[in-house]
Amino acid sequence: MSADAEYMARALALAERGLYGTDPNPRVGAVLVRDGRIVGEGYHAQAGTPHAEVHALRAAGEAARSATCYVTLEPCSHFGRTPPCADALVAAGVARVVVAMQDPNPQVAGQGIARLRAAGIAVEVGLLAEQAAALNPGFISRMQRGRPWVRLKLAASLDGRTALGNGVSQWITGPAARADVQRLRARSAAVLTGIGTVLADDPRLDPRLDGETVLRQPLRVVLDRELRTPPAARLFMAAGPVLILHGPGAPAARQAALRAAGAQLQAVAPAARGLALDAVWQALQAREINEVLAECGPTLAGALIEGGWVDELVLYLAPKLLGHDGLPLAHLGPYAALDQVSLWQCLRHELLGEDLKLLLRPRS
Amino acid sequence: MSADAEYMARALALAERGLYGTDPNPRVGAVLVRDGRIVGEGYHAQAGTPHAEVHALRAAGEAARSATCYVTLEPCSHFGRTPPCADALVAAGVARVVVAMQDPNPQVAGQGIARLRAAGIAVEVGLLAEQAAALNPGFISRMQRGRPWVRLKLAASLDGRTALGNGVSQWITGPAARADVQRLRARSAAVLTGIGTVLADDPRLDPRLDGETVLRQPLRVVLDRELRTPPAARLFMAAGPVLILHGPGAPAARQAALRAAGAQLQAVAPAARGLALDAVWQALQAREINEVLAECGPTLAGALIEGGWVDELVLYLAPKLLGHDGLPLAHLGPYAALDQVSLWQCLRHELLGEDLKLLLRPRS
Repeated sequence: MSADAEYMARALALAERGLYGTDPNPRVGAVLVRDGRIVGEGYHAQAGTPHAEVHALRAAGEAARSATCYVTLEPCSHFGRTPPCADALVAAGVARVVVAMQDPNPQVAGQGIARLRAAGIAVEVGLLAEQAAALNPGFISRMQRGRPWVRLKLAASLDGRTALGNGVSQWITGPAARADVQRLRARSAAVLTGIGTVLADDPRLDPRLDGETVLRQPLRVVLDRELRTPPAARLFMAAGPVLILHGPGAPAARQAALRAAGAQLQAVAPAARGLALDAVWQALQAREINEVLAECGPTLAGALIEGGWVDELVLYLAPKLLGHDGLPLAHLGPYAALDQVSLWQCLRHELLGEDLKLLLRPRS
Repeated sequence: MSADAEYMARALALAERGLYGTDPNPRVGAVLVRDGRIVGEGYHAQAGTPHAEVHALRAAGEAARSATCYVTLEPCSHFGRTPPCADALVAAGVARVVVAMQDPNPQVAGQGIARLRAAGIAVEVGLLAEQAAALNPGFISRMQRGRPWVRLKLAASLDGRTALGNGVSQWITGPAARADVQRLRARSAAVLTGIGTVLADDPRLDPRLDGETVLRQPLRVVLDRELRTPPAARLFMAAGPVLILHGPGAPAARQAALRAAGAQLQAVAPAARGLALDAVWQALQAREINEVLAECGPTLAGALIEGGWVDELVLYLAPKLLGHDGLPLAHLGPYAALDQVSLWQCLRHELLGEDLKLLLRPRS
């Protein structure tokens, strides 16, 4: 690995420290190097606090002059909650900036780089770009596709069952897999479920991490066309916000009771079954949601898959056989021919304790 | 790795060359080393032909004198189809013998070692014993448990389905996984299926390998209580033998027709459904079958699993979702509680092309 790549890898590792905190901002890391020595580094930790470059510049002080800055995302060029980082790099006298990837927002992409170049700074773009993009699938999706990144988590036995035929399902997977799900929740801006799961399992859906700090609680979202969520649901016992998306004509009394329980309510367009998922993404996009983790039952899982909305499928397989009357992973099909089924690509497979974790993407 | 371990690893690699040929004998490799140099090596290729030690001794000639012999299984001490290897090692003047594992046959275990020691040869036992045992699960099972090693192969989608709801299943997995199944067939002394699969799929079940020689064809075994196998089944188009195990009272005319088609027939005890599986293993043990590969439908797969007969489960998972009306992996259950389901341990997971291959053992 070249020295440039090593410093960028360090910046990527720093960026990852913001995994549970930067929403709606992206995760970004920066490293300042002068004369072959790191003189400052930093990462963006939480929206409203300084960006990665500012942390690195502050740490470097005067040593930033004529240094090289490695940053995982194009420095910003606009005034948001903080002043533009491109200006800060110019003011500090940085000589060279290596950027892993351009800003994915088509409206601002390249402006930060242009501002640096206009100030006489040498700028290179694209080093470890793929790894940099992998840090921020949700931010990139929101900027480029106008909707969040949807990660569907499913847990099943080897024979594809999420529960026994009688509904018993606690616990199919072991502690390592369940802890991994908590990390998926913590990195997500929203955790999505359906009213069926709320009524059947009464989950809290908030991340519970051992020894790690979650700086912002994900928005927990329930698709609940008829507004059947009980105001006493355990969802309301956790600290973060709850958004219930419902269909038209939800009774005022139920709305009032759920608002009193702490829920935010929003009506979205209905579909033949449940709610229109494109309207759901619009509602979440409006709230600047980057990554959505769907933790749901077979009905919503099936609708997400058949709608082509799943960007990433995380499947935990417990080494058990629950039997042919066990509950299915998702309501899919029936299909008449093999060319109708959804195809996936397995990007990663690893054992977590006794369970297998598969990371899959739709095959395009 | 010590020099001893390196030579034994070489002997293990040689033994593996006999994977498709030695039945009913075990796979064995041998290396002769003198003055830090390999002077002879060999492996057992096929029953009735010389054992590994004899090949190595012949290759070494006079150089075997005062050499060390590394052998993956205790040298034999009895006259079988060939003279005892222990005597041949003594006669050749070998000074030291390193044995990976004792003969698993309790009736002869240790006799070869004793014969070597009585002749003044230094003998060490147990180097890479686990790897040596992994070469011969079937031979060891037959010797120690009095029944073959049963490997169940299943192929399914991520949602645990072997076919669409309408039965369409060709092909769920890709070419790399299907080629791997051919290798499983080739190493097996018997390939086992049920009458349901014969009637539904009309398979040949013989190994078809590209560019590799299968010295003996596995015995293809059909469990067919009512003797419904069609005499025109494709099973009879392949070169190897076919054994049909049936229940009592099979009509003489059908028996005659199947014998005329080339089948061997044997009556075994019936069970509540199908045939008594312990009687099936007895019939295969009597034929000196080491490894059985079960390639079957959900009925027999379920009976094998619920009977606790599966020593190894090879599961190919295609990255597809076939839908909740797809055909199940096995008829299992219904179970009322999670402590009733079968538990497995995943020993290996790897991608074969697009498909995931899992190697599982029952959790004891």
